Amino acid sequence: MLPTIEWRSDAVVMIDQRKLPVSEVYVFCKTAQQVATAIKTMVIRGAPAIGVAAAMGIALGMRRSKATGTKQFATEFQKICDLMAATRPTAVNLFWAIERMKKTFADAAQGGCSVDEITQRLEDEARRIHDGDVQSCRAMGAHGATLVPDTARILTHCNAGALATAGYGTALGVIRAAVEQGKTIAVLAGETRPFLQGARLTAWELVKDGIDTTVITDNMAGSMMRLGDVDLVVVGADRIAANGDVANKIGTYGVAVLAKEHGIPFYVAAPLSTIDLNTPDGSRIPIEERHDREVTHVGPNRLTPEGARIRNPAFDVTPSKYVTAIITERGIARAPYEESLAALMMSGQRAAGSGQPAAGSRQPAVGSGRPAGGRQQ
Amino acid sequence: MLPTIEWRSDAVVMIDQRKLPVSEVYVFCKTAQQVATAIKTMVIRGAPAIGVAAAMGIALGMRRSKATGTKQFATEFQKICDLMAATRPTAVNLFWAIERMKKTFADAAQGGCSVDEITQRLEDEARRIHDGDVQSCRAMGAHGATLVPDTARILTHCNAGALATAGYGTALGVIRAAVEQGKTIAVLAGETRPFLQGARLTAWELVKDGIDTTVITDNMAGSMMRLGDVDLVVVGADRIAANGDVANKIGTYGVAVLAKEHGIPFYVAAPLSTIDLNTPDGSRIPIEERHDREVTHVGPNRLTPEGARIRNPAFDVTPSKYVTAIITERGIARAPYEESLAALMMSGQRAAGSGQPAAGSRQPAVGSGRPAGGRQQ
Repeated sequence: MLPTIEWRSDAVVMIDQRKLPVSEVYVFCKTAQQVATAIKTMVIRGAPAIGVAAAMGIALGMRRSKATGTKQFATEFQKICDLMAATRPTAVNLFWAIERMKKTFADAAQGGCSVDEITQRLEDEARRIHDGDVQSCRAMGAHGATLVPDTARILTHCNAGALATAGYGTALGVIRAAVEQGKTIAVLAGETRPFLQGARLTAWELVKDGIDTTVITDNMAGSMMRLGDVDLVVVGADRIAANGDVANKIGTYGVAVLAKEHGIPFYVAAPLSTIDLNTPDGSRIPIEERHDREVTHVGPNRLTPEGARIRNPAFDVTPSKYVTAIITERGIARAPYEESLAALMMSGQRAAGSGQPAAGSRQPAVGSGRPAGGRQQ
Repeated sequence: MLPTIEWRSDAVVMIDQRKLPVSEVYVFCKTAQQVATAIKTMVIRGAPAIGVAAAMGIALGMRRSKATGTKQFATEFQKICDLMAATRPTAVNLFWAIERMKKTFADAAQGGCSVDEITQRLEDEARRIHDGDVQSCRAMGAHGATLVPDTARILTHCNAGALATAGYGTALGVIRAAVEQGKTIAVLAGETRPFLQGARLTAWELVKDGIDTTVITDNMAGSMMRLGDVDLVVVGADRIAANGDVANKIGTYGVAVLAKEHGIPFYVAAPLSTIDLNTPDGSRIPIEERHDREVTHVGPNRLTPEGARIRNPAFDVTPSKYVTAIITERGIARAPYEESLAALMMSGQRAAGSGQPAAGSRQPAVGSGRPAGGRQQ
């Protein structure tokens, strides 16, 4: 499995996703600030991976703290949490991970732990978030693979793979699980301008795994569907609202509309940490607008003339009516999503109590896999 | 007006569209082979411009001929026509222009012209094709501008501008005409991967003309429409079948589906030389598949890993049901296109006889401009 991010006692180590697939370079973050910068500049990206990185960054920052008293330690902790929260606004996993770290801190402090003991508990929690993410991806893969026919050409957008998570992937986890079950899978990867996560990252990790992968420019997706070359779509998510609206990488919405037009199932694979019941619908999800330069240049090559304006929203919102099903580690949700998502989340609270998802458990209200091929709702 | 292509007695001169917007470099083609290579490698591109280039290339090739007898001259002529016909398969304007040159040759030969006289007539015809294209674009602009509200945000894809024609443009001609009429126009230009005609060419020529232009990646189009930032779409075409199906730059189909989903008018602007009544529907239009490298690299920068397959169809087909109207130099056609397009073409034969479009004339059967804002058919 690809080492997206690793915890070491003196550093958080990440593969630099900006440099793939040309160079495999690792970045050693030795401070919380360096981790925050790595998230912001997309050394690491992908909603679940961002959550893991933030948790590790907080644990690293507190280990570096020179505070002796718990009060000063708590002040520093809050500052580092704020630093992480300011990195990227859309992926809710970031805030979910920070909340878990805050709860760990509060529980430890209330329990009378020393600064050293709190530090240790924060590290343990960051590790649990990391390991839990891999388990979630595996469980998501098992559920999602039931939706994949024995022979399938699968279109995906952006990178919802091992590189977007602690390992295995969400959308690509579904694909990996189908391949592991012996299904014959060919993947169409939309290149995903402007940051090219599909061309650079999805293709890289799938080719490494020996999975048949074809890169297309994003604007070819419609043509491929019209020619009958796509059996289903599976993508990840950065935030899923309570009503099932899905914020994901820019371009996802266009793919979803095209899938509906062609009667092709459109699946979203995401851990429960991506579901935000506090956000009623997609219109309330903040959409990050990133630097013009991501659009105007590829490497040193300038693409656009001076004087042209640029738009660069990093995400879009796909209304739930385009979403055939949402695949989570605890089962598969279908419309009406207000009910199915709330049931999934509640079942987690009952099952785990701690707030940590109980990977793999299923709820009959939501249902596990059904065979693929159904029309859009 | 931008000098896309110019005829000189010893060369066909073109701006190198591969190097825009960073460098403004001119290519001097001194042989028919060099013109053919320029078309193939996209020094010049855009259906009408390809037609003009082919005609000039043929005229240049015949001027260079050392043949003394008409028989040898005719053999060389056929070879050069075949050379041009083999450059690119989709844009029908190429074949239309070659047919015009062939008719000119045949008429002159039948009329007992000498080699020198035939050469002169071929040059004259190439010039007429060039000048007629500019007139067509102006007439198209006048018709099309009637469809544009006084204030409009217009999405276009690829480059159907001055650079795609002998000057002024088809889709961008409509935009230019609306601006000249004092309308308040803001243009959204899809960057148009992989060759980036939107980012590089459309933005360049619109910015030069002082028209408000924003470049987006192709996958942002859906989001812009959903946010209410697009009032209408206008694109060019490489071939329009008898039933109104439109072959145009890859990605056009996706934009058309999205426009329909949002109730946004989707217009196609193209000269009659792009309409191919011999092709009954879009399924019969040959779609050129170009080199992988256009997708795998931007300049020297490699985007995809080794081992990933690539698809690179240069065009797609938009079924006529997504097309609100087709804007030509002779009026605006609407569904049912079998009738309206045939009527437009026939009216041209009546009006001009020679096969040369009579720019600006209108046929009541087809109708001229109607105010924009109507829903898709």
